Amino acid sequence: MRWGQTLYLIGVILVFVGLSMLVPLGFSLYYQDAGIIPLAVGILMTLAVGTGLIFGFKPRPPRPLNHREGMAVVALGWAAAGLFGAVPFCLGGVGGLTDAVFESFSGFTTTGASILNDIEAVPRGLLMWRSLTHWLGGMGIIVLSLAILPFLGVGGMQLYKAEVPGPVPDKLRPRIKDTAVTLWKVYVLFTLVETALLMFGGMDFFDGLCHSFGTLATGGFSTKNTSIAWYDSAYIDGVITVFMFLAGINFALHFNLLRGKPLLLLKDSEFRFFALIVGLIIAICTLVNQGSVYPSWVESFRYSAFQVISIITTTGYGTSDYELWLPLPQLLLLVCMFIGGCAGSTSGGMKCMRIMLLFKQGYRELFRLIHPRGVRNVKIGERLVKPEVLSGVWGFFVLFLGLQVISTLLVAATGVDVLTSVSAVLACIGNIGPGLGSVGPTDNFAHIPALGKWVLILCMLLGRLEVYTVIVLFVPEFWKK
Amino acid sequence: MRWGQTLYLIGVILVFVGLSMLVPLGFSLYYQDAGIIPLAVGILMTLAVGTGLIFGFKPRPPRPLNHREGMAVVALGWAAAGLFGAVPFCLGGVGGLTDAVFESFSGFTTTGASILNDIEAVPRGLLMWRSLTHWLGGMGIIVLSLAILPFLGVGGMQLYKAEVPGPVPDKLRPRIKDTAVTLWKVYVLFTLVETALLMFGGMDFFDGLCHSFGTLATGGFSTKNTSIAWYDSAYIDGVITVFMFLAGINFALHFNLLRGKPLLLLKDSEFRFFALIVGLIIAICTLVNQGSVYPSWVESFRYSAFQVISIITTTGYGTSDYELWLPLPQLLLLVCMFIGGCAGSTSGGMKCMRIMLLFKQGYRELFRLIHPRGVRNVKIGERLVKPEVLSGVWGFFVLFLGLQVISTLLVAATGVDVLTSVSAVLACIGNIGPGLGSVGPTDNFAHIPALGKWVLILCMLLGRLEVYTVIVLFVPEFWKK
Repeated sequence: MRWGQTLYLIGVILVFVGLSMLVPLGFSLYYQDAGIIPLAVGILMTLAVGTGLIFGFKPRPPRPLNHREGMAVVALGWAAAGLFGAVPFCLGGVGGLTDAVFESFSGFTTTGASILNDIEAVPRGLLMWRSLTHWLGGMGIIVLSLAILPFLGVGGMQLYKAEVPGPVPDKLRPRIKDTAVTLWKVYVLFTLVETALLMFGGMDFFDGLCHSFGTLATGGFSTKNTSIAWYDSAYIDGVITVFMFLAGINFALHFNLLRGKPLLLLKDSEFRFFALIVGLIIAICTLVNQGSVYPSWVESFRYSAFQVISIITTTGYGTSDYELWLPLPQLLLLVCMFIGGCAGSTSGGMKCMRIMLLFKQGYRELFRLIHPRGVRNVKIGERLVKPEVLSGVWGFFVLFLGLQVISTLLVAATGVDVLTSVSAVLACIGNIGPGLGSVGPTDNFAHIPALGKWVLILCMLLGRLEVYTVIVLFVPEFWKK
Repeated sequence: MRWGQTLYLIGVILVFVGLSMLVPLGFSLYYQDAGIIPLAVGILMTLAVGTGLIFGFKPRPPRPLNHREGMAVVALGWAAAGLFGAVPFCLGGVGGLTDAVFESFSGFTTTGASILNDIEAVPRGLLMWRSLTHWLGGMGIIVLSLAILPFLGVGGMQLYKAEVPGPVPDKLRPRIKDTAVTLWKVYVLFTLVETALLMFGGMDFFDGLCHSFGTLATGGFSTKNTSIAWYDSAYIDGVITVFMFLAGINFALHFNLLRGKPLLLLKDSEFRFFALIVGLIIAICTLVNQGSVYPSWVESFRYSAFQVISIITTTGYGTSDYELWLPLPQLLLLVCMFIGGCAGSTSGGMKCMRIMLLFKQGYRELFRLIHPRGVRNVKIGERLVKPEVLSGVWGFFVLFLGLQVISTLLVAATGVDVLTSVSAVLACIGNIGPGLGSVGPTDNFAHIPALGKWVLILCMLLGRLEVYTVIVLFVPEFWKK
């Protein structure tokens, strides 16, 4: 570990975060709201620390990152963004230290779990910052999952490794830059189109932009207390449903779409799996909810489709109180929470690609029992999946589950009931937002004891950074020479 | 598949089951209760079908089983025992067809989930049969997991394969016989010792025997409505706690203990892991329950130890209503349900050995991230674990979880609430018995709709036969030439 290099890059991230706060400051100035001073102080603090790190640790000559440094920058950089992003919330009276950090981490990890009891009372500038943390986090995660993690070999993400000649670490830098720029173009374009469509449906620019940030990042922070249900508009529900679905797809595929190769999307087996699952679960929910909760088929489809896509893409926007649904659709939503969207999207959860690989290997074991000497390879599309990718996925799965169990026990230890503990942890580690029980779609996380909130903050970070990248920092082996 | 051979062996199993019913018939005759006719008819029906199959399909000359036939005999034989074992319950008015089959499968799979609202009203002969199905199922599972499954390569059980020269299938027969006889000796000895100890504590021979059957098989059927709590005796609680713990350990280790090599037990890494987990969870539960539920440390330890060991060994006996415990100990019991005891014991669940292997491989992946070119092998004790054992465990894990999810959705589809659906499936697939919600320790399964009961019946069988052995029958590949 060369600490200088790592701290320098964290400084760069902080300067970027500090400059980003200028956007909500602009809104605060325009609306003349109470967010001006908290945001201004936040900008100064973040820039001061950021530039301090940059000038204090600038490596000369610049050197490429190695494997471990890459992970340290990702995990510590995200955490630093979350901490400094909390400054405006803390100063703006959104909450105490714990609550402000919770809200900020929930933003940067695109989780969308909130401690706010009255969202609409918060100054608009701070609400804009809240939504912008989603958008920045979403941008970060696309680049991370498509450009950085494949090279680090995290949790089976090697599947997405583009072919590059030569040893891996030295080639990291230029590749990341190319990929990043391309993906950000798509991300920005989608955001602008959705904002325009939402404004066409009656939202003002502020609300349209905030909700687009929340959608494309699959975050879920709304500017309204009752989330999307506030608008009670089939058009707005429809626009957001479509864009949430798009945000749950690998962004590299969208790039192909824009380049005029839309068929590549349909050829992608992860996309097909995702679309199949989404379609199937929407169909079952529509069927069961019709009659039991919603009077007509059209309404049942509208609310079921919105909620299923909102949960499986781990966005967390709400148009209905799904705790009033029957047990089967409620459980299906829990399954959606676990699955998540596609790898390379802004969504959280296990990701469809991993679920596919797990079941393919499960089936292979059945095959092996029937033909003990037979050989059967695991494939994605036409491509053979390498053993190290499979064991990466297995490792991810067991760590993901193991951390969920431990976190749930810790949250329950603070006195939170069984169903709430289980679903709060799942909602945070999967970066979803709302859960069941007392953290359901009509509730928030304010009532969770402080210790429980800190566990959930760590869960959000773990889930967002594909578990490995954070957990590896806790392994003594990591710090050895 | 040579069906003749398979049907012949199922006939042998049925004759064995039919003859076993003579024991409860003896009790019914002694007590002159209403079990006489149902049991007599059950014996005649079971023996008639059994001998019919034997004489109809006896292979001449006898041939050893192949791989697939082995699995078919195990799965279909267990199901046949469950179905014919239900005859006395059905005729004796214990319940309709579904309930009688549920109770019988719950017995033979050593689950202990019951549909009886008033156990004490059932004739003693039928209660004896109910407990005896546990004992027979437990005996079956020890032999299956230590002598048969290792050779079939199911779910990582190859770890327990004793070294035998030559190709596997031909050597199955003599090996099974040797191992079986040895293990049964231990099993019978433990049962007799426990019965004697329970009688010393005030139980009559009938109750002592029934509760010993339920303990050693980690089944959990009691002859009292309030389970072990009825006796309200620290001595009886203690005896049963110790024997449940023993029943959760690999029976091959007990054999070493009896041969005067007790140190082999402490050397076994799965036993050490099991003992450590049990100790840790009992300590936490004792700590949390003291004050919140039980007034004194002694009481808290007594009830916590009993309940934790009862659940982790998947027995399901109760001395306390753990739904009154705080969230943390309740969740710990859910974790216990999932883990289960040691492989080669009568307990269900994932089994400690598999949990260990999963975490060892999870850690290996972390290691690999830190040292991308490093090599780290997974070991159990001093032994290297082969890749096919690991992938067997992974396959087991994903199938076990996948089936739980699907079964939970099916049970919820019948209108059962979320917590009850989740815990009922976990309690059945893990062969535990009681769950949470409306199938908690003070409730029973009578109120679950018939369709839900059939799903749970299948779950019990799947869990008991290590998933693979049953699920393989549903794979088309299995039936191809």
